[in-house]
Amino acid sequence: MAGNSFGTIFRLTTFGESHGSAIGGIIDGCPAGLEIDFDAIQSELDRRKPGQSQLTTSRKETDRVEWLSGIFEGRTTGTPIGFQIQNSDSKSTDYDHLKSAYRPSHADYTYDAKYGFRDHRGGGRSSARETACRVVAGGIARQLLATEGIRACAYVDRVQNIAMKGAPQFYPRSIVDQASVRCPDMHVAQAMEKRILEVRTQGDTLGGSVVAVLSGVPAGWGEPVFDKLQAVLAHAMWSLPAVKAMEIGSGIEGSHMVGTKHNDIWVQQDDKKAHTQTNHSGGIQGGISNGEDIVLRIAFKPVSTVMHPQPSIDQEGNAVEVVGKGRHDPCVLPRAVPLVEAMAMLVLVDAWLKNRTVRLS
Amino acid sequence: MAGNSFGTIFRLTTFGESHGSAIGGIIDGCPAGLEIDFDAIQSELDRRKPGQSQLTTSRKETDRVEWLSGIFEGRTTGTPIGFQIQNSDSKSTDYDHLKSAYRPSHADYTYDAKYGFRDHRGGGRSSARETACRVVAGGIARQLLATEGIRACAYVDRVQNIAMKGAPQFYPRSIVDQASVRCPDMHVAQAMEKRILEVRTQGDTLGGSVVAVLSGVPAGWGEPVFDKLQAVLAHAMWSLPAVKAMEIGSGIEGSHMVGTKHNDIWVQQDDKKAHTQTNHSGGIQGGISNGEDIVLRIAFKPVSTVMHPQPSIDQEGNAVEVVGKGRHDPCVLPRAVPLVEAMAMLVLVDAWLKNRTVRLS
Amino acid sequence: MAGNSFGTIFRLTTFGESHGSAIGGIIDGCPAGLEIDFDAIQSELDRRKPGQSQLTTSRKETDRVEWLSGIFEGRTTGTPIGFQIQNSDSKSTDYDHLKSAYRPSHADYTYDAKYGFRDHRGGGRSSARETACRVVAGGIARQLLATEGIRACAYVDRVQNIAMKGAPQFYPRSIVDQASVRCPDMHVAQAMEKRILEVRTQGDTLGGSVVAVLSGVPAGWGEPVFDKLQAVLAHAMWSLPAVKAMEIGSGIEGSHMVGTKHNDIWVQQDDKKAHTQTNHSGGIQGGISNGEDIVLRIAFKPVSTVMHPQPSIDQEGNAVEVVGKGRHDPCVLPRAVPLVEAMAMLVLVDAWLKNRTVRLS
Amino acid sequence: MAGNSFGTIFRLTTFGESHGSAIGGIIDGCPAGLEIDFDAIQSELDRRKPGQSQLTTSRKETDRVEWLSGIFEGRTTGTPIGFQIQNSDSKSTDYDHLKSAYRPSHADYTYDAKYGFRDHRGGGRSSARETACRVVAGGIARQLLATEGIRACAYVDRVQNIAMKGAPQFYPRSIVDQASVRCPDMHVAQAMEKRILEVRTQGDTLGGSVVAVLSGVPAGWGEPVFDKLQAVLAHAMWSLPAVKAMEIGSGIEGSHMVGTKHNDIWVQQDDKKAHTQTNHSGGIQGGISNGEDIVLRIAFKPVSTVMHPQPSIDQEGNAVEVVGKGRHDPCVLPRAVPLVEAMAMLVLVDAWLKNRTVRLS
Repeated sequence: MAGNSFGTIFRLTTFGESHGSAIGGIIDGCPAGLEIDFDAIQSELDRRKPGQSQLTTSRKETDRVEWLSGIFEGRTTGTPIGFQIQNSDSKSTDYDHLKSAYRPSHADYTYDAKYGFRDHRGGGRSSARETACRVVAGGIARQLLATEGIRACAYVDRVQNIAMKGAPQFYPRSIVDQASVRCPDMHVAQAMEKRILEVRTQGDTLGGSVVAVLSGVPAGWGEPVFDKLQAVLAHAMWSLPAVKAMEIGSGIEGSHMVGTKHNDIWVQQDDKKAHTQTNHSGGIQGGISNGEDIVLRIAFKPVSTVMHPQPSIDQEGNAVEVVGKGRHDPCVLPRAVPLVEAMAMLVLVDAWLKNRTVRLS
Repeated sequence: MAGNSFGTIFRLTTFGESHGSAIGGIIDGCPAGLEIDFDAIQSELDRRKPGQSQLTTSRKETDRVEWLSGIFEGRTTGTPIGFQIQNSDSKSTDYDHLKSAYRPSHADYTYDAKYGFRDHRGGGRSSARETACRVVAGGIARQLLATEGIRACAYVDRVQNIAMKGAPQFYPRSIVDQASVRCPDMHVAQAMEKRILEVRTQGDTLGGSVVAVLSGVPAGWGEPVFDKLQAVLAHAMWSLPAVKAMEIGSGIEGSHMVGTKHNDIWVQQDDKKAHTQTNHSGGIQGGISNGEDIVLRIAFKPVSTVMHPQPSIDQEGNAVEVVGKGRHDPCVLPRAVPLVEAMAMLVLVDAWLKNRTVRLS
Repeated sequence: MAGNSFGTIFRLTTFGESHGSAIGGIIDGCPAGLEIDFDAIQSELDRRKPGQSQLTTSRKETDRVEWLSGIFEGRTTGTPIGFQIQNSDSKSTDYDHLKSAYRPSHADYTYDAKYGFRDHRGGGRSSARETACRVVAGGIARQLLATEGIRACAYVDRVQNIAMKGAPQFYPRSIVDQASVRCPDMHVAQAMEKRILEVRTQGDTLGGSVVAVLSGVPAGWGEPVFDKLQAVLAHAMWSLPAVKAMEIGSGIEGSHMVGTKHNDIWVQQDDKKAHTQTNHSGGIQGGISNGEDIVLRIAFKPVSTVMHPQPSIDQEGNAVEVVGKGRHDPCVLPRAVPLVEAMAMLVLVDAWLKNRTVRLS
Repeated sequence: MAGNSFGTIFRLTTFGESHGSAIGGIIDGCPAGLEIDFDAIQSELDRRKPGQSQLTTSRKETDRVEWLSGIFEGRTTGTPIGFQIQNSDSKSTDYDHLKSAYRPSHADYTYDAKYGFRDHRGGGRSSARETACRVVAGGIARQLLATEGIRACAYVDRVQNIAMKGAPQFYPRSIVDQASVRCPDMHVAQAMEKRILEVRTQGDTLGGSVVAVLSGVPAGWGEPVFDKLQAVLAHAMWSLPAVKAMEIGSGIEGSHMVGTKHNDIWVQQDDKKAHTQTNHSGGIQGGISNGEDIVLRIAFKPVSTVMHPQPSIDQEGNAVEVVGKGRHDPCVLPRAVPLVEAMAMLVLVDAWLKNRTVRLS
C-alpha cells in the first residue's frame, strides 16, 4: 500500500536509496520452470546504466545483479526471486550542500512534507536509481512473454522539438540502439544528439518523448472496468520519474477527428483472425487487447538538475541559491527507453497470468 | 483483481450491465461519522445522466440512488455502503441486430475474445452506464474531502479543435455549468455547442479534452515509487471510457522546454508556506503533492457509435454492415466532466487516508 | 482493507446490516461460462436461514436471492455478480431497550469503541445475518469446484459434551441433514437435540464443534509461506462469528504424539497416485494440499444472547441490566454447518484459480 | 498473491531458501520517525536461531541482519526497509540422498506437485529458515507498538502431555527465558526439558503448545467482517510451520460451557474504562479488540524429521527408506515462542495503522 510494489500476480517489490549500500527487490509470483538467460537481463541493465555514453551522467555503476533466491539449477522455482545491486559509486558528499535546501522541481520538499525528514543523499529513495530494479524484473517478464511470442520495443521519437515523422512502428533493438540516443531514424538521431550535447554545454537539460510498441499480444488481455489494460499501462508509465503526458494509439490527434474517421474497421484476414484496418485504438478496446500492436507515447520533462544557480528556499524558509553538482543526465530520454519497455513487460506479464483465470476451462 | 474495484482504503467495487435490472456498488472503508448530503450526490448524478440536454443521448434514466447500508441516522457508520440504481429505460431490442456483429471501436470483439461470449445488450458491462456508480462514490469522497478544504473542478476546454485559451484554473461549478457543454468560457462554449449540433445532424461524433484542477490538496499526499500520485490519477482517468491522452502540469508543451525554464522556483510566501512561482509540475513532485493546484488534461476520442453504416465482420468472420441505432451521445465531453471529478475525488480520498499512516505520530 | 471482502481472484465483497433494507454482495472474478443452478444456491440458503427448525431462532426470512448482474442467459459472463437479499422480518423495536446498553460478549462496546457510534438495531453489521451473503457466494464456488470433482461436507460432531466417536469422514448431505441438528450419527443427534431443547427452556445456550471434510482436492493447491492453505482456511473459519478454536488433521491430539507415530507414511496405490497411510496432516503439507481429504474441526462458543437478566453497563458507564429479547438461536451449530462449507468453498475456489498461474505452461 | 507477503499497510515480503546464499525481506509501510534499537532486534533473532541450547538443532547460524535501506541516521524514513541474513552454515550435501525421495510429513511431495520441481536442499523454501525474516519484521513492529504501550509475551505451556496449570497470564521475558524450554514455571520447565532430551536420545520428536498474551491493546482494533482481529491472528499463526490447532480465550473448553456462564460481564472500573469480569472472549468481541488481554494458544505437531528409518516413496513411486540426517530440533516449541510473538506483532501493527483511518477525524 505504501507504493513500493507493482503487479498483482507477478509482483515486484523494491527497496533502496541512491546512496545506501544496495538497491534490490523481490519478484513474487513468477511461474516455475523458466530457464533464465542471465546475460540478457544484464544487457537490459546495461542499457539503463549511467555512463554508457556522452549523453548520460558520468556516474559509474557496474549494476551487477546478485540473484539471492527463487532460482535453482538455472530455472525459476515458483518461489520468490530476491535480488540486489550494490551501490558502488555513490558520492554522498556531492549532496552535503543540499542537506537543507529544496532543489527546484525535485522531491526534496515533498518528501520532507510527507515523512517529516528525508535521506537527502542523491535524492534518497526519490532518485531514479530505483528504476534499475524495474529493469531486472522487466527482464524476467520479457523472457516469460517471449514464450508467448510477445515483443516490446521502445525508442526515442522526439527530443525537444526534433521529432521523427510517420506512424509508430516496431523496430528491432539492433536498429534502436544504433544511435546512443536510441532513435531508430539515424538522421533524426544525429540531430537529437547534437542538440543534447549543445544544451549540456550550456549546463541546461532537455525533454522529449518515447514511443512504445508492444507486439504479439493476443486479443483478450486486460481487466475492465477499473483495470483496463490502458489504465494499468498508464499507472506503470506514470510511475516513472519525469513523465508529463501519455497517449495511446491516435492520441491527442485522435481527439480532433470525427467518429466516422476515427473508428477502426474490422476485417477478416487470411490468417482467419479479425484485424482492424487502422489502429487508432492503439491495440486496446474496452480495456481489453484486440490483437493489434499496442502503441503508446510518453513525454518526459527536461531534467531538473541544471548546472546553473537557481534561487530557492531551505527547510526554514530562508532564501538560498542551489546549483547542480554531482553527475547528471542532460536528457533522460535514451535511458528512459529500457524503463518504458520494462514497465510495459511488467504490465503484460501480469495481464497474461490474470487471463488464465477468467474462463471456466 | 478482476478489475471492478478501485482504491485501497476507501475502496469502491461496482457491478452491473447496461441492460440488466440494476447497477450498483459497495464502498468499503468510508470513515465513520460523515453526515451525508444525499441531495448533493443526486445532483452529481444529474450532471452525468443521459438526456440532460440536446448535446446528450436521449436515453432517459432517473438515476435515483437507493442506499442499502452503512448509513445510520444520516451518518456513515464505518461499515460498507451498499447502493444501487435501477435501470429503467433500457431498450434491449435496439441491440438485437448487433448480437453477433462486432461494432467498430467498441468492446464487442474483445469481450468475446476474453470471456468466450458476452451480454450484447447495450454493450453489457462495457457500457459507460457503469460510470454512474463512480459518481456516487466520488460524491461521498468529495464530501469527505470538503472537510479538509479540498475542491475539485473539471471543465471542457476543447471540443475537436475549438479550444479555450490561457492557463487552466479553478472555476466554481456555477460557472462551469452555465453552458450545457460545460466550458466556462461562454464564447468558446457557444462555438462548441454549435459544432456538436452540426456534427450530430451529420450522424457523426466528436472528441476533445477536459481539464481538472484539484485545489487545496496539502503537501505530502501520494505514495512513491509505484503509486506516485500522478500514477494513481493516471490509472483513474485512463479507466474511463474513450480516453486517448493525459497530461499533467506543463504536459507535452513542457517536454519542449529546457530545464532552466521548466523548473518551478520555490518561494516563501506570507502564509509561511512554501510555494512555487510557476506550476509546471502540476502540483506533484516525486509522486507527492506539493501544495499547489493539481492540474490534469484528459483527451477523449470521438464517440464510436455513429449514425452511418460502417462495414464490419460478425462472430463467424462474415462481412456485415453495422449502423448505430439506439440513443447515443454525439460528444461525451460534457458528461465526462463529472466522471473526471469523481475519479479525482476517489484518488484523493484514498491518498488522504493512506497519508494518516506514514508517520510514527 | 476494511474487512468486507474475502478472496483474491474469486473475491466476495458484502454489505448490509441486520435491520437495514437489504444485505448483499458482489462476486468479482468468477470465471465465465458456468451454468448456474439457482435452486441449488437457494437450497444452501435454506440450510442457513432462521426458523428452519425448533432448534433455531423464530425470525422468519425468506432469504430469496435477487441476481442483479454478471449472469446472462443462465451463465456467468466473467463480469461482477451483484446480488441482494431483502430484510423482510426485522423487528428493530426489539432492540430499542439496548440502544445504549452493552450486551455481554456481543460487539456493542467494541463497535462503539472503534467507530464512535453504531447502528444498534439487531447488532447492525455485527449480526450474523451477513453470513447469508457468504452462503450465496459459497454456493457459486461449490458449483465451480464441482466441475473439478471437489466436494465439501460439514457436520456437527459435538454439542456441549455430547460428541460423535471415531475419525472424521465424508458424509453425503442426505445423511447430514437427516437430523435437524446436522449430526450424521442419529443416536448422537437425538441426544444433542434433546439437550438443546432443554437448555432453550432454561433460557440458556450451548456451543460445540463442527467438522469439515473437503474431498477431491488435488495435490498442489495453496500458496506458501504466508498463505498456506491451512492459514487461509483458518482466516476464513475464524472470520465466522463465535469461533473459539480450530484444529486440522490430528489437531491437539496430534500435538501429544511423538514424531515417529505422527508422520504420515507415503505409499503408492493402484491409481498410481501417492497416498498417505494415515492423514494426521489433514490433507495439507507445507501449506500445500497433498491430495488427501482436508479435515478441519471448528469449535463455537455458546450463543451470547440468553433469556436471563445479566448485569452490564451502558455507554456512560452506568450499571444496567440486560435481558435477551427478540428471536435467537439456543445453539448456532446446526446453522454453522452451511457457513463452514461456504467458507471452505471460497478458500478452495481461490486456491484453484491461483494455482493456474504458478507454472510456465 | 503468491503468498510471500503479510500485512496490508505494514507489509512484509520475504525471500530465500534454506541453502541459498541469503534470506531476507522488505518491510513496506513502516511509519517514518522510529528510532530503531538494532540490538533488540538482534536479540529477538537470537531467541529463534539454531544451536542456542541442547534442546535445538546444532546448525550454527550467526543470523546477523544486514540493513540495506529505509533507515537514515538510525531512524526509519518511511521508505521500504530492505534487509538480509546470510546463510553461513548450510550443508547441502546432507540432503543429497533425499533429492528424489519424499520425506514423510514434509513438503517434498507437495512442492513437486505444485511447481513441477523443487530445490530439495534443506527443504528449500519450505524450510523454517524463512521464519527468521518474520522475527526481524516482528521486532520492528514490536518497537512501533511499544510507543503505544503494547507488549507481547509468548511461552511454552505444554510439551507433549507436560502442561502448566492455571489461566494464561503475561510473563516478562526474563521469566520466560529462565529455562531453555521457555516455560515460565520452573518446575514444569524442568520436566519438559527432561522429556525432550529423553526423546531426542531415542531419535524421536515432540509437540506441544505455546500461549500468547498480548497486553495493552486498546479497544477498537480489528476489521469486521472478514478480517476480524482473531481471523487475521489465525491467518498469521497458521502460516507458521507445524501448527495443528489454535484457540482463543476460553477455547475448546469454552465451547463446553453454557451461555450464562460463558458471557463476560461488563463492569466500570476505577480507571473509568469498561472492563470484563472474566475474559472468555480472549480480548476480542465481534472481531474487534475490547481492551482486555488478547489470549491465544497454538498447538504444534512433533517435528517430522526423526532419526529413525521410515518407509516412503520417491518421485517415480518406488519404495524407499528415508532416515533423518542433518541437524534438527527434537521439539520446535522453544524456538516457536519468538515466532508466535513476531506474528502477533505483525498483526497488531497493521491493525493499529488501519485503525487510524476508520473515523472522520
